[in-house]
Amino acid sequence: MMQRFGDPLERELRNAVGGDRLLLYDMVRYHMGWVDERGMESRSDPGKRLRPLLCLLACEAVSGDFRQALCAAAALELVHNFTLVHDDVMDGDRERRHRPTVWAIWGKSQAINAGDLLYSRGIESMAALAASGLAAEQALTAVRRLEQTCVEVIEGQFLDLEFEGRSDVGVDEYLVMIGKKSAALIACSLEIGALAGGAGPQAQRAFSAAGREMGLAFQIRDDMLGIWGDASVTGKPVGADVRRKKKTLPAIRAFELAGGEDLRGLRAIYSTPRPSGAQVATVLEIMKSLGVWEDVGRLAAEHAAAAAAALDALPVPEERRRAILGVLEFFVRRDA
Amino acid sequence: MMQRFGDPLERELRNAVGGDRLLLYDMVRYHMGWVDERGMESRSDPGKRLRPLLCLLACEAVSGDFRQALCAAAALELVHNFTLVHDDVMDGDRERRHRPTVWAIWGKSQAINAGDLLYSRGIESMAALAASGLAAEQALTAVRRLEQTCVEVIEGQFLDLEFEGRSDVGVDEYLVMIGKKSAALIACSLEIGALAGGAGPQAQRAFSAAGREMGLAFQIRDDMLGIWGDASVTGKPVGADVRRKKKTLPAIRAFELAGGEDLRGLRAIYSTPRPSGAQVATVLEIMKSLGVWEDVGRLAAEHAAAAAAALDALPVPEERRRAILGVLEFFVRRDA
Repeated sequence: MMQRFGDPLERELRNAVGGDRLLLYDMVRYHMGWVDERGMESRSDPGKRLRPLLCLLACEAVSGDFRQALCAAAALELVHNFTLVHDDVMDGDRERRHRPTVWAIWGKSQAINAGDLLYSRGIESMAALAASGLAAEQALTAVRRLEQTCVEVIEGQFLDLEFEGRSDVGVDEYLVMIGKKSAALIACSLEIGALAGGAGPQAQRAFSAAGREMGLAFQIRDDMLGIWGDASVTGKPVGADVRRKKKTLPAIRAFELAGGEDLRGLRAIYSTPRPSGAQVATVLEIMKSLGVWEDVGRLAAEHAAAAAAALDALPVPEERRRAILGVLEFFVRRDA
Repeated sequence: MMQRFGDPLERELRNAVGGDRLLLYDMVRYHMGWVDERGMESRSDPGKRLRPLLCLLACEAVSGDFRQALCAAAALELVHNFTLVHDDVMDGDRERRHRPTVWAIWGKSQAINAGDLLYSRGIESMAALAASGLAAEQALTAVRRLEQTCVEVIEGQFLDLEFEGRSDVGVDEYLVMIGKKSAALIACSLEIGALAGGAGPQAQRAFSAAGREMGLAFQIRDDMLGIWGDASVTGKPVGADVRRKKKTLPAIRAFELAGGEDLRGLRAIYSTPRPSGAQVATVLEIMKSLGVWEDVGRLAAEHAAAAAAALDALPVPEERRRAILGVLEFFVRRDA
């Protein structure tokens, strides 16, 4: 699928970033996976391009032609990458997609600038919908929806950081947070794709609702991969998020389900500065005995089913619907 | 002037930020000068509100009614404050407007989020021009102009940080930097005010050109105040920017004009980790003997004159023009 969209999308993304020679732009091009640290052309993992893919599929589902949504798809990917660059600064993460992060190379201050630039270029690219044949009213609606979504994403990132300092975060609160931080932009991607393809407000809302459920399913799956996922595929140790003491959904559920000695054990390990390999193994043992994998997997499956049902209700050709369902299934079943 | 605009503008700004109870919003309200650190209503210095003032005056000059530009004026102020919150993080500045900066209270990570939120709300407020009677095409043009300006401002901030690591920055390069970092948003404020008031593209460009000259004059004056300005008014020691070794225009000119012993003295002091009071006094002495104050003041006056000439050429009623000229004169003559 991405083969068909890939080249036009990458061209659109490069155009949107622009050809300026300032190092600031090389930082952005590096993060996007187009150049190396010295600004030389090189191919590296650009990430999944999930949001533009969904946007283009939604546009194609309602109009038959994905090209009308290319600048919107680029906008969504740029905005997503703006949040990644800033998140890496905030979380102090030194590596992303097997390379040093922007701040790890150029420092936190310039990484803030690089993120801000990605955000600006993202909004510009969305506003360019008006130049690709859409009425100005519609382009403006798309810009406003994107901005409202950005506000949700920023609120989600705020909550995520705030949760780190708390030990009493429940599942409901956590789902609100990932609904904002992750699912909102997935929902926006399908919604704006539909808008760019000429769908009316009701269909746009239906795409958005399906996207929100998809986004929740994806993020819950991501949380599972953060603990159990990488071992077989990448060779990384299992328990990565336990080692970092990240309170993602499996940890939250483990704390809720555990009692007695298990609970005391979890508390002790999650309050150690750096859990040892043996302690990580203990947490994994406790999670296994509590059935956390199955428990969290059930929640992911529920949201995936809700997304599939929402897609089913859309008045679009069957093969177009199946293309979007394919993305859902691929990402909910993936192992890395 | 600000009395007439003040209340409607503050109302518009508060509406644009929104009433959410999340701490993230209190951080923004704190920065804007509306609440204290605990989120309680309190009045503190909100800053000069220069950009919205110019936007409203430009709108009034072409249409007679400033209210059409209120949400645009709010947008410009929010975007300006987004850059301030991020700049404080990057520069490590702990104080602004006589209060601790957002990051000094809530940490750098959450300050990045607060800045991002201000940016989002700013763009939303600009897009709202369409709801205040302007055609969608025009509102979209305003959004795009604002985004292009944000890109300039971010480039300017990037260059400013880059210059810190260099000792060979010349006046021309420096003017390019402040043209982006400071003057671009002033130009945009007048331009979008005119657009919101219904002026055509030619008049918009003329307002923009006048704004760019004004912005350069303001920033050069700011640089002068950073060294000589505050003493008589605020009681702060003169030489603040010398103490911080900031290479603003007076320092750049001093290095260019100095020779022999003066130049060796400047080099020695600007490479000390923390210049002493005596060393600051020496720099001020050298600047005095070289006539740096007069030299830099001449440049500010040139740009102010160019701005006045550009305003003179605008086809707007004489009293409206004089109102904008009044702002120019006030800020170019100010002592603090």
